[in-house]
Amino acid sequence: MRCIRLTLQYDGTNYHGWQEQPGQVTVQGTLVACLATILGERPRLEGAARTDSGVHALGQVAAFKTEHPIEIRRLHAALSSRLPPDIAVTEAGEAPLGFRPMIHALGKHYRYRIYRGPCKPVFEARWVWHWYRDLALEPMRQATRLLAGRHDFASFQGRGSEREETVREIFRLDLSEAGPELHFEVEGDRFLYHMVRSLVGTLVEVGRGHRPPEWVAEVLAARDRCAAGPTAPPQGLCLVAVRYPPDGQLAALPPRGVDEEGVG
Amino acid sequence: MRCIRLTLQYDGTNYHGWQEQPGQVTVQGTLVACLATILGERPRLEGAARTDSGVHALGQVAAFKTEHPIEIRRLHAALSSRLPPDIAVTEAGEAPLGFRPMIHALGKHYRYRIYRGPCKPVFEARWVWHWYRDLALEPMRQATRLLAGRHDFASFQGRGSEREETVREIFRLDLSEAGPELHFEVEGDRFLYHMVRSLVGTLVEVGRGHRPPEWVAEVLAARDRCAAGPTAPPQGLCLVAVRYPPDGQLAALPPRGVDEEGVG
Repeated sequence: MRCIRLTLQYDGTNYHGWQEQPGQVTVQGTLVACLATILGERPRLEGAARTDSGVHALGQVAAFKTEHPIEIRRLHAALSSRLPPDIAVTEAGEAPLGFRPMIHALGKHYRYRIYRGPCKPVFEARWVWHWYRDLALEPMRQATRLLAGRHDFASFQGRGSEREETVREIFRLDLSEAGPELHFEVEGDRFLYHMVRSLVGTLVEVGRGHRPPEWVAEVLAARDRCAAGPTAPPQGLCLVAVRYPPDGQLAALPPRGVDEEGVG
Repeated sequence: MRCIRLTLQYDGTNYHGWQEQPGQVTVQGTLVACLATILGERPRLEGAARTDSGVHALGQVAAFKTEHPIEIRRLHAALSSRLPPDIAVTEAGEAPLGFRPMIHALGKHYRYRIYRGPCKPVFEARWVWHWYRDLALEPMRQATRLLAGRHDFASFQGRGSEREETVREIFRLDLSEAGPELHFEVEGDRFLYHMVRSLVGTLVEVGRGHRPPEWVAEVLAARDRCAAGPTAPPQGLCLVAVRYPPDGQLAALPPRGVDEEGVG
């Protein structure tokens, strides 16, 4: 038996998210179907994050176990030729047999892109949230400083996939300008369902002047989804990277938690 | 009567090119249908270039005449709210009544993008030609110097929309690297059908080592489409900008030629 780790990029526009679902085209389902034609068996493929419908990835990580002796280079080439143009394997390699992409992750980095301006972004429409009006950066930056760190993020958990345990840590929550775009860089240990998009929607309420920066502390304290701003649309979100311990340590590690997460 | 000039961006992926055709979704047809709902009449809309199926634009120019008194700002807003996400009007303004976007153009700037590398460009797939193998830049640059200038480009005219008069001038034909991408910047007075894509396909024959740089001079001399390389695929091509004389001069100018062109 061996464990194979894949690093993946995908344009999520045409997929019902990561997770395989009967009757829906999903990223996981598409990968498993391609792997099945190569290996002659349907592997159990686990992803690091269950990205939502319309959410993209630059560095999703997935892994599966197989007894098939196929060379990694051949597997990579076979996958690349079979996958549709909107999914790519950027790396393929052996991993320690006990590797679990979701529960061994030390951190995940998401980017949310907002495109500002009166004119529609024709070429970026699939990857950004188009915001027509002004957004004041300084109040949003003040608010990000109140949200970063270890908090109970119950107010930022979307309906439909609730966790009991809602304390999470955000290592980094930065706002940067890239031409007409605003980028929210969010790194954390694990994320609740719709958490990044709820954070962005809440920060936009501050940026547009509907709420003062201090309001986000009240939102955190409320532990109530209704206290926060709206959920930002999916197409602006991208899973940039997932961080793991070195392979030597991975092999020896127990799983970090029993609570598998959904994120989008 | 007044003449209104529009500057347009579009993602050509889902369109059968610029030109209105019965039973096909085209950029011109989509614009005319939107204008008709705003003006209560179907205007005769002329574009600067008839871009082909799958070809994009950052700066297409189009114009129409109308007696409707609508304010330009209102027209622009009404168009923006009615057009699909893959077409945008970046500028709208009054033009001299005799303005003809195609025949008054002094020059057009096209960009052709090639993405190099073994891994599929998931996020750029709609705008680039993915080239897996190596391309030698220096021989391609030598070949561009033989193609720039005033020549008979009959060998670079695609089938299906032939012109008798095939002498054209290329003002600029530059090759630049942008990370994993190669950009061909092509500026000329007018272009033959499939001319830019045939030039790129021919330069790639040189870049991959199938032909020496001097071969392109033989291709020009042959005046035969079969002498040149293949036509590069449409999705890498984008009409970047169209250049005109100042409006003051435009009003007084006669049309530059009777020969309207098709380009792809």
